[in-house]
Amino acid sequence: MFMNAESGYRKIEWAKRNMKTLAKIREEFRREKPLEGYKIGMALHVEAKTAVLVLTLIEGGAEVAITGCNPLSTQDDVAEALRDMGIKCFARRGMSREEYYEALNKVIDFKPDVVVDDGADLIFLLHKERLDWADNVLGASEETTTGVIRLRAMEREGVLRFPVIAVNDAYTKFLFDNRYGTGQSTWDGILRATNVLIAGKTVVVAGYGWCGRGIAMRAKGLGANVIVTEVDEIRALEAVMDGFRVMPMKEACKYGDIFITATGNINVIRGEHFKLMKDGAILANAGHFNVEICIQDLEEMSKSKREIRPYLTEYDLGDKKLYLIAEGRLVNLVVGDGHPIEVMDMSFSDQALAVRYIVENHEKLEKKVYRLPEELDRKVARLKLESMGIEIDKLTEEQIRYLSDWRYGT
Amino acid sequence: MFMNAESGYRKIEWAKRNMKTLAKIREEFRREKPLEGYKIGMALHVEAKTAVLVLTLIEGGAEVAITGCNPLSTQDDVAEALRDMGIKCFARRGMSREEYYEALNKVIDFKPDVVVDDGADLIFLLHKERLDWADNVLGASEETTTGVIRLRAMEREGVLRFPVIAVNDAYTKFLFDNRYGTGQSTWDGILRATNVLIAGKTVVVAGYGWCGRGIAMRAKGLGANVIVTEVDEIRALEAVMDGFRVMPMKEACKYGDIFITATGNINVIRGEHFKLMKDGAILANAGHFNVEICIQDLEEMSKSKREIRPYLTEYDLGDKKLYLIAEGRLVNLVVGDGHPIEVMDMSFSDQALAVRYIVENHEKLEKKVYRLPEELDRKVARLKLESMGIEIDKLTEEQIRYLSDWRYGT
Amino acid sequence: MFMNAESGYRKIEWAKRNMKTLAKIREEFRREKPLEGYKIGMALHVEAKTAVLVLTLIEGGAEVAITGCNPLSTQDDVAEALRDMGIKCFARRGMSREEYYEALNKVIDFKPDVVVDDGADLIFLLHKERLDWADNVLGASEETTTGVIRLRAMEREGVLRFPVIAVNDAYTKFLFDNRYGTGQSTWDGILRATNVLIAGKTVVVAGYGWCGRGIAMRAKGLGANVIVTEVDEIRALEAVMDGFRVMPMKEACKYGDIFITATGNINVIRGEHFKLMKDGAILANAGHFNVEICIQDLEEMSKSKREIRPYLTEYDLGDKKLYLIAEGRLVNLVVGDGHPIEVMDMSFSDQALAVRYIVENHEKLEKKVYRLPEELDRKVARLKLESMGIEIDKLTEEQIRYLSDWRYGT
Amino acid sequence: MFMNAESGYRKIEWAKRNMKTLAKIREEFRREKPLEGYKIGMALHVEAKTAVLVLTLIEGGAEVAITGCNPLSTQDDVAEALRDMGIKCFARRGMSREEYYEALNKVIDFKPDVVVDDGADLIFLLHKERLDWADNVLGASEETTTGVIRLRAMEREGVLRFPVIAVNDAYTKFLFDNRYGTGQSTWDGILRATNVLIAGKTVVVAGYGWCGRGIAMRAKGLGANVIVTEVDEIRALEAVMDGFRVMPMKEACKYGDIFITATGNINVIRGEHFKLMKDGAILANAGHFNVEICIQDLEEMSKSKREIRPYLTEYDLGDKKLYLIAEGRLVNLVVGDGHPIEVMDMSFSDQALAVRYIVENHEKLEKKVYRLPEELDRKVARLKLESMGIEIDKLTEEQIRYLSDWRYGT
Repeated sequence: MFMNAESGYRKIEWAKRNMKTLAKIREEFRREKPLEGYKIGMALHVEAKTAVLVLTLIEGGAEVAITGCNPLSTQDDVAEALRDMGIKCFARRGMSREEYYEALNKVIDFKPDVVVDDGADLIFLLHKERLDWADNVLGASEETTTGVIRLRAMEREGVLRFPVIAVNDAYTKFLFDNRYGTGQSTWDGILRATNVLIAGKTVVVAGYGWCGRGIAMRAKGLGANVIVTEVDEIRALEAVMDGFRVMPMKEACKYGDIFITATGNINVIRGEHFKLMKDGAILANAGHFNVEICIQDLEEMSKSKREIRPYLTEYDLGDKKLYLIAEGRLVNLVVGDGHPIEVMDMSFSDQALAVRYIVENHEKLEKKVYRLPEELDRKVARLKLESMGIEIDKLTEEQIRYLSDWRYGT
Repeated sequence: MFMNAESGYRKIEWAKRNMKTLAKIREEFRREKPLEGYKIGMALHVEAKTAVLVLTLIEGGAEVAITGCNPLSTQDDVAEALRDMGIKCFARRGMSREEYYEALNKVIDFKPDVVVDDGADLIFLLHKERLDWADNVLGASEETTTGVIRLRAMEREGVLRFPVIAVNDAYTKFLFDNRYGTGQSTWDGILRATNVLIAGKTVVVAGYGWCGRGIAMRAKGLGANVIVTEVDEIRALEAVMDGFRVMPMKEACKYGDIFITATGNINVIRGEHFKLMKDGAILANAGHFNVEICIQDLEEMSKSKREIRPYLTEYDLGDKKLYLIAEGRLVNLVVGDGHPIEVMDMSFSDQALAVRYIVENHEKLEKKVYRLPEELDRKVARLKLESMGIEIDKLTEEQIRYLSDWRYGT
Repeated sequence: MFMNAESGYRKIEWAKRNMKTLAKIREEFRREKPLEGYKIGMALHVEAKTAVLVLTLIEGGAEVAITGCNPLSTQDDVAEALRDMGIKCFARRGMSREEYYEALNKVIDFKPDVVVDDGADLIFLLHKERLDWADNVLGASEETTTGVIRLRAMEREGVLRFPVIAVNDAYTKFLFDNRYGTGQSTWDGILRATNVLIAGKTVVVAGYGWCGRGIAMRAKGLGANVIVTEVDEIRALEAVMDGFRVMPMKEACKYGDIFITATGNINVIRGEHFKLMKDGAILANAGHFNVEICIQDLEEMSKSKREIRPYLTEYDLGDKKLYLIAEGRLVNLVVGDGHPIEVMDMSFSDQALAVRYIVENHEKLEKKVYRLPEELDRKVARLKLESMGIEIDKLTEEQIRYLSDWRYGT
Repeated sequence: MFMNAESGYRKIEWAKRNMKTLAKIREEFRREKPLEGYKIGMALHVEAKTAVLVLTLIEGGAEVAITGCNPLSTQDDVAEALRDMGIKCFARRGMSREEYYEALNKVIDFKPDVVVDDGADLIFLLHKERLDWADNVLGASEETTTGVIRLRAMEREGVLRFPVIAVNDAYTKFLFDNRYGTGQSTWDGILRATNVLIAGKTVVVAGYGWCGRGIAMRAKGLGANVIVTEVDEIRALEAVMDGFRVMPMKEACKYGDIFITATGNINVIRGEHFKLMKDGAILANAGHFNVEICIQDLEEMSKSKREIRPYLTEYDLGDKKLYLIAEGRLVNLVVGDGHPIEVMDMSFSDQALAVRYIVENHEKLEKKVYRLPEELDRKVARLKLESMGIEIDKLTEEQIRYLSDWRYGT
């Protein structure tokens, strides 16, 4: 056993201890072997929590091949431990774009029946270049807002080749992972990369979706003064009512000490904004792809750049310096350990149940994007509460009656 | 002009000044007269903000008759001012149940084409006892969660006689009115009724829907330690992650200093709970009907009761005293001035647009419960931001393209 | 018994129920009669909680005469109840300045041995016009920051005629009353006077002392975006680190929707600021005297004024309207019920112990401003925790040793 | 130049960029050379921010020797960079107790005129074993609450050999460093060590001093449910009013998921508490010395232990496992990068001014513990605001007059 694998094994053990919902599902899988005979191809951030999902699927009888879904987010010791257990794992930290796609292709070469994706790169590859296998896929599950936006576009265009469970849209995923998970882990990453004080800083959060509001909420919790930018009028109003200032990025860029993007969109912060920023401004991205901050503009406007701290690049624009964290990639995954364990406990429970659901129902499913069935979604919530030792109320007979009877009144 | 009307007029003027979204719609109505020739029957809390809605509908060309939707929430000076302007207003504070229904019947006698309701008492009356007019109604709009739950039950049973716009389900309604509105005004009512310090108190909030989370959020903002009770596992988990303790009412009732119900359900706090409460516990209801706290149990368990402060009834249970605010009716409307003006500015803008929508589209509508069309919902948000002088970002061409093109990737 | 007194009696009873610390002290006073034979002259806001203090002093054996310390803060039913119990009470709501001073003089005519003051008007009167009695006073206690600032100035000038206990400087007073008390009750008053939504508003708080930070904290808790103005650099920095924007009033006045003064100083908001304010801005004062907002400037700049809602005066400046709450007097006391009961429970416990301390130690005291002795201060905290059923840790022997032994180390 | 030094140099550069207050003082020192001819002996956490202080003192003309003040907190690349610049630096990460004291002795061998200490180990060593040099020391400054408590004990016992400036007691130190600094960096350390979700966790904070309240405030800001334990009744009451549950550790230990000590005291969490804890509880210390959690008890109660993640030790107690971070040493310094840069900017500005003050005033100073003179304290606040581009109000002439004139009133 490699020394490296050893540290990977321990990380997995710690994650397992804190993923108590998934443990309950693993127990079911162990007894019922619902995935017996199925091959699962995965593209997820390869780190300890993901390993626990892999082990759960294997417990359910599946064979698994996995690679990363981001060139910089793999934790090599965990990948090593997976390989040490005999699992096909093609991920390595710091892959080139070419190597990254080569690894995705290897997962498809494995001929997966079900695909588990994060960012939908694997699904897109199947649709763009690997049509040889696409039609053999029974179904896929997708984890991110970013991915789901695209998959719905594919569904509308009628080009989707297999059903997809939008795990991202499960309540037990987006209400928790995107909000409490991204909220915490984004700041974890920023703190590690910069060591700056958040209290008293002006923080600009681009996007007030579930990720954005998690980030804004935690920024406030750390003592920052928060500005939100949005394109959606309703979310913008919510941000105002939550006590934040709301303004266009063109204005906000003058005030920010720290900027964080969480929009799922492209070039949200770009040249025209860099121009107006203060000397020393720090830039980070919490969206899935490294396109939200326009790095090309930044490169073109700079005389030079260098790494001033690990994961912190200083761009010298002549009249000022700007600081980009993690090359504009997902700050929580690149700089830190990704999402908190307990949050992935829920998201990966959704994933495990989604895979089982595809295997058991693929014949009934059309080539569409589906939500995780609500009873499975609620099951995850129930198991999670149970694992935390929390009890809740039950409706009484009288209450059930009352809710459905419109004859009551003043 | 009566002295009373005078104070009503001023209150209306103050409300009008602060309802700037509705002002923009009133301007449109004035120019376009979309309601010309229509009769509108309303059952809403009759106070200054409602009066501004009434005046807006009249500006649009409508004839209006109005009564209250709660026996204790009418502000008599405002009702007087409305009557002084020649509007049919049947509301009076402190009506008996009989008088209350008599007034509702008068609104139906007025033969309204469109019904604007809050709690759905008027709509139910039409379905239960006034079938003579029900089929003549072009459509109705309903304001509350409580009402909408029932209307959907009616739709499912196939008994609904006309289309209903569930104004409650508009984003610009429930995300704001229920959360920021109820959140603030519930505490306004409790402070007025009790003069107690909230900081350091244990507050039990029953229900973590949009109202409940508003109340819990403000309780925390006032320094309370909050316990949430829920029957829904996902909401319960959200409450946990928001930092609140979650437990069954049977447990929570031992710790609470102040209890607030916001469930839309019946007998949420009842005899078995009163029994376990601490001496001096305070009880308030923020749900639409006065059924959430079981007053009958409280009466039966008490040796005597008396009003110790305005709107605060002391129940002497022998071994302890419990304090009920506003006879268990909507605490914010009975003790205070109801919702903050700016929140009703949005909700009533939804109402005004819903009425217009019914008038212009009733022929296309089925006997179902509809959401307010999203473009109207977004219009209200846009007008509101505008009235606050807040500008937001717009998607660039490139961004619109990016969002819809699934061919992008890592 | 007057009807009025009846409502006063009930208010007093409710207050008494919630003042459990003072109840423990009243019990001691009842047994030990430490004030037997002493006359106490008081100038405090005459409302229910103050009445409980009066009754406590009487329980201790004292004779009491009382008047108000603000022309607008008296609750007449409570004053009536006090008189009904045979206590000398000269307060009435809405006194003219002349009547106000006449009443203060009557308290001095009563020949008090000890003076209990709030704002120090009574103490100043003794020093300015009633030197006939000043030298007979054994000592006084003073409740407010405003008063204590002045009394220290008098001490420095050597003109103080008797010792004063700065009750305001007791930890169990200023850390609680000023912060949690003023914080909550100021907003209670503003909500009652205006019915506006606080969420989404820009609130400017002048002064970041204990009152100011309480107000700012609660504003944030209600969803406002808060700007703080300060003259003290350390407090200003704290406000920044607490996530608030800090700027001079000259700048802040352009952004504020609501302005609240809590500085203890004069003309903090004045003509030059009114000029720059937005139409519709609301002004309130939470400092002891009505001098923080320069009403004279406001009057001179206005074409007309009128009361648009109870306690809310509209000033028409031609190009805009500004709204002043409670004529610039203490917003919490004039519009609401003053401080929350539990907070006054602590402050008045300090007052009761201060009076006893003066009576028992006046011979040792010099003509200086004293803090309440720390053991009394701690006693109040201890009794309060006890009354809330809260237990805390005790130092072990080993820990006591450790803290005092510098020989320990790494 | 060593590779190691290179990374140290960059870290120092990044720190320097963000320490703008100290930069202004360095500028003064450069011009005025106030420390010319003086030797300064330092025992501080040797990392980038400290290096900036060292460079500032050298700019002022001093010669410096430095070692660490904690065996685990040194960052070796920074130490290397200091040595590379020719500065006497004896620190190394992971020293044994023996090596640690050897290094402290080397600093004394350097014959320092002024001592800059953190935790007071260097000062105690001078008093316990190095009396040979103690009387030559002109004065010292001490950074921590822990150290100052002891130094005051020494002053009371009359054993102090030279004056000490309690830098910890400067407003610009304890109000910021202890609260916002420790608050943030403690959580930074815990997140790195554990990757657990804070939202929804029950966090027990022992001690509600400035550090403890910073930690509790941030825990709340991260979504935790916080319990506070205290021995001081006034602080305990504040914690209650801030919305936290307060109870003895004997009770709290049953509920906590994460425990953090910040008391400056010994054995705050010990055997009797470990016994009652839940399986999986996490333990961290934020106090200066590793004595707050009784590690001896933990070792004795455990069957085995191992490192499950870097800096996270699993203790197997048979019926449960407990997790100790960083061997009970300062979690922020051992696991993370210590305090945020901007906070140390202020504390080290205080240190630099304290050293200058000692050099210029030692003849007037007695062998006592002094506060940093208020004008220096205020100077740091003023420079800090300036460096952040924040302007504040100034008192007008009229206002200055008003504050000092007690003749004003109602």
